[in-house]
Amino acid sequence: MEIAILLYDNFTALDCIGPYEVLHNLPGTDVKFVSRDGGVVRSDSRRLAIATDYSIDDVPSPAMVLVPGGPGDEAAGADERICAWLRKVHASTKWTTSVCTGSIILGAAGLLDGLEATTHWASYERLAARGAKPVARRVVRQGKIITAAGVSAGIDMALELARLEQGDDIAQAIQLGIEYDPAPPFDTSSPDKAPPHVVEFLRAHFAGLERGSAVSG
Amino acid sequence: MEIAILLYDNFTALDCIGPYEVLHNLPGTDVKFVSRDGGVVRSDSRRLAIATDYSIDDVPSPAMVLVPGGPGDEAAGADERICAWLRKVHASTKWTTSVCTGSIILGAAGLLDGLEATTHWASYERLAARGAKPVARRVVRQGKIITAAGVSAGIDMALELARLEQGDDIAQAIQLGIEYDPAPPFDTSSPDKAPPHVVEFLRAHFAGLERGSAVSG
Repeated sequence: MEIAILLYDNFTALDCIGPYEVLHNLPGTDVKFVSRDGGVVRSDSRRLAIATDYSIDDVPSPAMVLVPGGPGDEAAGADERICAWLRKVHASTKWTTSVCTGSIILGAAGLLDGLEATTHWASYERLAARGAKPVARRVVRQGKIITAAGVSAGIDMALELARLEQGDDIAQAIQLGIEYDPAPPFDTSSPDKAPPHVVEFLRAHFAGLERGSAVSG
Repeated sequence: MEIAILLYDNFTALDCIGPYEVLHNLPGTDVKFVSRDGGVVRSDSRRLAIATDYSIDDVPSPAMVLVPGGPGDEAAGADERICAWLRKVHASTKWTTSVCTGSIILGAAGLLDGLEATTHWASYERLAARGAKPVARRVVRQGKIITAAGVSAGIDMALELARLEQGDDIAQAIQLGIEYDPAPPFDTSSPDKAPPHVVEFLRAHFAGLERGSAVSG
């Protein structure tokens, strides 16, 4: 199963590396990092440079496409070559997926019209503006389209895809292989659980950066 | 705070990108991906290429060093230039850290003698052979040395470091920013919780690959 992970300038790294770590361990997959023109693409922090082996033209019909989010989401969604490629590959994918504000890009390509989808918790309004119906769940499936919530949610989405593709034993083996037995220091990682002053701090931070900072993923 | 993340051939990507996503969002940090000679380094799947901006010689005294694990751990630990650099930087770091079998490399450099440390659950014996006392916890701190368990445990370690460095509010804001409210499909991600046949399958898989496959991180 050929899996294309689309990178673009100012993507958020964990959005794609979380799912990548699950999916490249799924037997029979062939993960390809692609970008519009191939070559080096920098993440939102500008500190991480990934050298993509393929341009989008090199991968015209992947079985699965995954779009990460990031502060570059608006620019990527405004890129007609990227949107045309997404529409073309979506016509024949088995799975079309996004993490965090990657759904903004799927929406910009016209793939989410009228569908339930999710994104980073601070970006529901932007997602709705692209025709989707935002829902506050960690992983949302609508037929072959699966969208995940912010940044780290891509790991959960990819494990669910592993389960759908190859069953519980393989998905459990991958989860155990990456020792995904999470123990976050705080149980405050959704806006309804976090202290209000932390939520307000982040909302102001994102608003001040117009379309989100690095952590808006 | 200058943070050096050491990459080497056949590293496991999530080991370092999880902590990176937390740490680059910590105010005042300057994350640098370094490799022995600078330039492109490939992950264990060979499908991901990171272009490091720095060689180890370019970053002689980071405040923090982070070493990911991966099937390339033995080769990296046998590289005298890498070990000499680790010993040198450790002399002046505030934090010396590893994720997964990155602790094998710290041990090979002689930094873990007699200390409690952790690693991927399938690699305790190899860690003990480098002089450490392996313990089965997700994050283990011994003074300024912090080691994390397999692959995804680096996210929890980095959030703990964020808390230690800048307190609960900032650490909570980062955790909420990356929406780290994990919902794995299975509660079977440690050997004592997973079905025995899944654990045995993975142990055999790792043993067959001598020093672990991609998922051994």
